Amino acid sequence: MTNVLAQELIKGVAPLNFSGLYSKDFLNTWDKTQEELKAILLIAKILKNFRESNLSSKIFDSGLAISIFRDQSTRTRFSFVSACNLLGLLPVDFDEKKSQIAHGETLRETANMISFMAEVIGVRDDMFIGVGEKYMKDISNAVKDGFDNGIIEQLPILINLQSDVDHPTQCMSDLLHLTEYFGGFENLKGKKIAVTWAYSPSYGKPLSVPQGIIGLMTRFGMDVTLAHPKGYDLLPDVITKAYENVKNFGGSFNRTEKMEEAFDSADIVYPKSWAPFEAMKKRSEFFLKGDMKAVETLEKELLNENAKYKDWTCTEAYMKKTKNGKALYMHCLPADINGVGCKEGEVEASVFERYRKNLYKEASFKPYIIAAMIFLAKIKNPLDVLTKILTKNYKRIKH
Amino acid sequence: MTNVLAQELIKGVAPLNFSGLYSKDFLNTWDKTQEELKAILLIAKILKNFRESNLSSKIFDSGLAISIFRDQSTRTRFSFVSACNLLGLLPVDFDEKKSQIAHGETLRETANMISFMAEVIGVRDDMFIGVGEKYMKDISNAVKDGFDNGIIEQLPILINLQSDVDHPTQCMSDLLHLTEYFGGFENLKGKKIAVTWAYSPSYGKPLSVPQGIIGLMTRFGMDVTLAHPKGYDLLPDVITKAYENVKNFGGSFNRTEKMEEAFDSADIVYPKSWAPFEAMKKRSEFFLKGDMKAVETLEKELLNENAKYKDWTCTEAYMKKTKNGKALYMHCLPADINGVGCKEGEVEASVFERYRKNLYKEASFKPYIIAAMIFLAKIKNPLDVLTKILTKNYKRIKH
Amino acid sequence: MTNVLAQELIKGVAPLNFSGLYSKDFLNTWDKTQEELKAILLIAKILKNFRESNLSSKIFDSGLAISIFRDQSTRTRFSFVSACNLLGLLPVDFDEKKSQIAHGETLRETANMISFMAEVIGVRDDMFIGVGEKYMKDISNAVKDGFDNGIIEQLPILINLQSDVDHPTQCMSDLLHLTEYFGGFENLKGKKIAVTWAYSPSYGKPLSVPQGIIGLMTRFGMDVTLAHPKGYDLLPDVITKAYENVKNFGGSFNRTEKMEEAFDSADIVYPKSWAPFEAMKKRSEFFLKGDMKAVETLEKELLNENAKYKDWTCTEAYMKKTKNGKALYMHCLPADINGVGCKEGEVEASVFERYRKNLYKEASFKPYIIAAMIFLAKIKNPLDVLTKILTKNYKRIKH
Repeated sequence: MTNVLAQELIKGVAPLNFSGLYSKDFLNTWDKTQEELKAILLIAKILKNFRESNLSSKIFDSGLAISIFRDQSTRTRFSFVSACNLLGLLPVDFDEKKSQIAHGETLRETANMISFMAEVIGVRDDMFIGVGEKYMKDISNAVKDGFDNGIIEQLPILINLQSDVDHPTQCMSDLLHLTEYFGGFENLKGKKIAVTWAYSPSYGKPLSVPQGIIGLMTRFGMDVTLAHPKGYDLLPDVITKAYENVKNFGGSFNRTEKMEEAFDSADIVYPKSWAPFEAMKKRSEFFLKGDMKAVETLEKELLNENAKYKDWTCTEAYMKKTKNGKALYMHCLPADINGVGCKEGEVEASVFERYRKNLYKEASFKPYIIAAMIFLAKIKNPLDVLTKILTKNYKRIKH
Repeated sequence: MTNVLAQELIKGVAPLNFSGLYSKDFLNTWDKTQEELKAILLIAKILKNFRESNLSSKIFDSGLAISIFRDQSTRTRFSFVSACNLLGLLPVDFDEKKSQIAHGETLRETANMISFMAEVIGVRDDMFIGVGEKYMKDISNAVKDGFDNGIIEQLPILINLQSDVDHPTQCMSDLLHLTEYFGGFENLKGKKIAVTWAYSPSYGKPLSVPQGIIGLMTRFGMDVTLAHPKGYDLLPDVITKAYENVKNFGGSFNRTEKMEEAFDSADIVYPKSWAPFEAMKKRSEFFLKGDMKAVETLEKELLNENAKYKDWTCTEAYMKKTKNGKALYMHCLPADINGVGCKEGEVEASVFERYRKNLYKEASFKPYIIAAMIFLAKIKNPLDVLTKILTKNYKRIKH
Repeated sequence: MTNVLAQELIKGVAPLNFSGLYSKDFLNTWDKTQEELKAILLIAKILKNFRESNLSSKIFDSGLAISIFRDQSTRTRFSFVSACNLLGLLPVDFDEKKSQIAHGETLRETANMISFMAEVIGVRDDMFIGVGEKYMKDISNAVKDGFDNGIIEQLPILINLQSDVDHPTQCMSDLLHLTEYFGGFENLKGKKIAVTWAYSPSYGKPLSVPQGIIGLMTRFGMDVTLAHPKGYDLLPDVITKAYENVKNFGGSFNRTEKMEEAFDSADIVYPKSWAPFEAMKKRSEFFLKGDMKAVETLEKELLNENAKYKDWTCTEAYMKKTKNGKALYMHCLPADINGVGCKEGEVEASVFERYRKNLYKEASFKPYIIAAMIFLAKIKNPLDVLTKILTKNYKRIKH
């Protein structure tokens, strides 16, 4: 009753049209409207405020939240577990044996067999171009079919925990971080963000983060500059999406092959390594054919190619070129820090260290973003439920 | 208060004598009376109805449900996790290192050490003839001893999640599926069910499902026909049990070495691969001796033997021989589908696909069967508790 | 309202000063005052009483309890899981890839990334001298830093689930067992406990249990005798601590190189194998250098050295030398039992078997000790909360 901030935040959500989120998967940010994305950010803030006020947001008394990680994960895994636990769902990891679930028939069956009491399915499949998102859609279609046929009692919604296309829980956390850092959505307008490739001695980092960032930040009137060496292209469809966003929502989208050009007067920099789209596509094809020798050869070529661009690293010198020399440095973590985890990498140690607290803060929003996505997809009248939580004043810790 | 169906179901359980289930393990269906089995099916339906009505069945505020899987599992694992979560127990998997727990002393100790706060222990040990059920009994005796000596505060009950003898959670789900499909227990009387061996290119599938089916379905006045090639015998004790059931409960039990004879005019067919009992017994002995060469030789022999019976597959032609060509096709899943997961297997793709929804439905009862087993073993006055749940009307999801 | 025993126990805690436990890690028993340790034992007893009275102690509605096991664990793992579940926290295991988290930077980052919603972090790292406790302190400092900088909302406290120095959850369970066995703290005064090395065919058992026992039992006026063959020294700092305890709290601390001398007239015996401190230190250094050949050579030397002392085993003959031939035999389990798990080991089978129930009972206190540690570290006014639990009378199982 006395939580004024939460009440104001709830009022802020009320005028938004976010009914389209109900009972729907979250695959890519560009499938959602501006108002829907804003609603997610606001609900994330409300759930954060609730937890800080020791209010319980446990809306589920039982129910499973299944995760399928086809690639290693630490922060997204723990963010998912934290979000589900906050809402009362039991996180259960499905440890897939790749061979068993590989062909379509088994995937459909397995998806149903594990989902009888699942409210949410979180999936990471980020490495293979043209595969990750398809895998998520196959699972989603399988459980929808099961729901429609009365096999699964409730429709589990799928949350993309990083595909080959987008990494929405990361990018939405990044966006929430930016709104908090700059003091609201309105202040993002006209801000220049440099999304740049950076050198890494490790090969084949996913493209989903830079893709997600240019696909999302171009929607809020920001000036997005994408920089990478020749050949390190992102998915063409996402590039198209970025240009469309500029048309629809203002701001600008520019591309360059010079890192310093991107950094010039930037308010925000997001330097991060990734592998070229065409090479990753080839790699996926080799993998599917089982041609491991071709994969190996390709990896060597890519590492050699990478090594030509060791000067693509976020140095203090580059940082000086940014707006007042004080651009906000962002990264999805973990970063390859020069002289720390590797000899040469994405960022100079002094730059990273100066922004360390900001980076951890940026990451700390992810559990709330995931919780908000679940909340809005599973609860038909979210504002009523949030108001009830406030009124009931049920404590998370019984002090 | 308004849930009429649930109230009627509770009334249906009331006259049954099921007190024998309280505080007892569930190893084999034939250890239980007809009324006890019926009570489990009805409680399963009630818990399903509760969940569909968004009523919380969380009767435990804390407590562990331990699972020990000595063989791979997907659907039973997730069914167990779902059931425990539904009731409020935390599922925890005990990842046994086979060598460490192998000899009796350690098993007794380990069983106690993991059970201080365990309400339920679910065990799968289905591969080795003469071992699986013994292993479960050893664990059960160990924790009973711990409970009697005041070491463990509550007596954890053990649920057989598939042994070398029976697979009761599967077979009870199958039975519930049949009662729903044919409209009640009474309608099972006189129905012909063909439990037949089927070819599979994979070697050594467990015998517990066909054993469980003939041990259970012969109790409800059904006409059970068991068919398999010469040599593919099941455990003699279970065969004896099936004949006894017929004497006690009516119906019939017939055996044949011809698949078409079993399918002839059948209302239900359950074609599934298994390994011969005698061969599996030998294999267990070789394993215990550590004679892996003998195991390998035996496996090859068995695969060669299997290959003689590739015509034992559930074809459209065979299905036509069943009652009106429309017998219900059943399987515990996953099935070896011809041309899908393997070249030649247990069932033709078109047959499987036609019954796919039924098969998924059949599987979907398992979480509720397990929950009902736990409910009746752990709650002294289950009908009171069910009535309280109805009256309190506490929601599973706080919409 | 009617739980008289619990009310009395709560009254017993009231006069103690235990405020120093709030919001603090539990690394070693000697970091805590007598009153703090007594408070933990009493709260453990209260939580045990609550559970036995079917009272729910679920004080958390959500929140994570993270465990990091750098060494195998069964009983401590399940005790931790049980304790957290009892209080309402979700136990989540962090499966660390040793290489990834090895250097300081990553550890700091990882500790923060997994702790956004963590209330407790339990860590086992018991093998490497000079490393385990440091690792725990690094994690603790990392999350404190995160909390101070507003990255982590609540301060997770760290509980030592066995380090290279102490094993406080084990030793506190042992202490609770002793107070129950001898009828209260007062009766421990003057009791002789023999902490002796024992032969084991397995190499390099941790030193933390004997260290923890001599560091803890010397605080309660007990006569502690440490016995081991020449060369099997414990950490010098802990030896110093034991002598200090005697000065501060009475009792005595004696050392001998003869097992029978320690057993002579002992009230309690705790014979257990461990590796020599100096050798383990060397081994840690070899490991850090990656010199696996030196490690191997050292292990062989140690096994040969061990083999000289096969007569250091807890025989019936030795037991006869204890007070009335009836000393309480203790062990942290699992023990190497002669002729059971090994040919020759720490204890004769008949001795072990005679004390088996006592040993299991000793182990059964651990979940409550861990729960009490969490309770007192996370709840500011624990006595108020305990009284509320009694008053509300909320049931753990809804019978």
